[in-house]
Amino acid sequence: MEETVTDTEVDVAFDEDGLVPAIAQDAETGEVLMLAYVSPEALERTRETGLAHYYSRSRDELWQKGKTSGHVQQIESVRVDCDADTLLYLVEQEGGACHTGHRSCFYRTIEGETVGERVFDPETVY
Amino acid sequence: MEETVTDTEVDVAFDEDGLVPAIAQDAETGEVLMLAYVSPEALERTRETGLAHYYSRSRDELWQKGKTSGHVQQIESVRVDCDADTLLYLVEQEGGACHTGHRSCFYRTIEGETVGERVFDPETVY
Repeated sequence: MEETVTDTEVDVAFDEDGLVPAIAQDAETGEVLMLAYVSPEALERTRETGLAHYYSRSRDELWQKGKTSGHVQQIESVRVDCDADTLLYLVEQEGGACHTGHRSCFYRTIEGETVGERVFDPETVY
Repeated sequence: MEETVTDTEVDVAFDEDGLVPAIAQDAETGEVLMLAYVSPEALERTRETGLAHYYSRSRDELWQKGKTSGHVQQIESVRVDCDADTLLYLVEQEGGACHTGHRSCFYRTIEGETVGERVFDPETVY
């Protein structure tokens, strides 16, 4: 059989819901942008298209990051952790990753201080 | 009531199992080191001691990272994402984060290529 882009040499250990968490990290700056969940189909689409796809647990559907907002994530590399139950997407992020308009979803400390940069106005995007 | 270090100004949205995923990132280099799960008690200990604590789902217990190996994680900051259901620990990592001896658990691409640095021999540590 011919090897295709969807062949996964590392066997990903999807959980009982068929998902694994995926961390998106800015490939250039190293900033951690977001965490979302990935189904086998989302991973396949990600690898096929070179654009980050996830699975929404609340909406129960596959989604392409940035499809509505234009804030897509171009995949540079997909990494797998030692237990193969977490993915790391190294990406080139258009605009901001967060629906609040911040570059990263991790824009607050647990003490409630805003430390992240706001890069767009969500009112004009969504 | 006096404010203590365990007061959480951002209300963390623990899931039905009482856990949230926490990403550990090297505060200096930006390298993503690992992902593990955190219970309210693990978070409290982390904030009290300044050392990363997690909750093991397989062993069903609280653990301090590096307690056995010495490869502790000193906490520089704890960040919370927009939905408050994921944490980001910014840490100073002693030795390596991964039980395989690698600096980061994300030492492989999904294609199976090793890209991460090995910093210790697990045989001599565990």
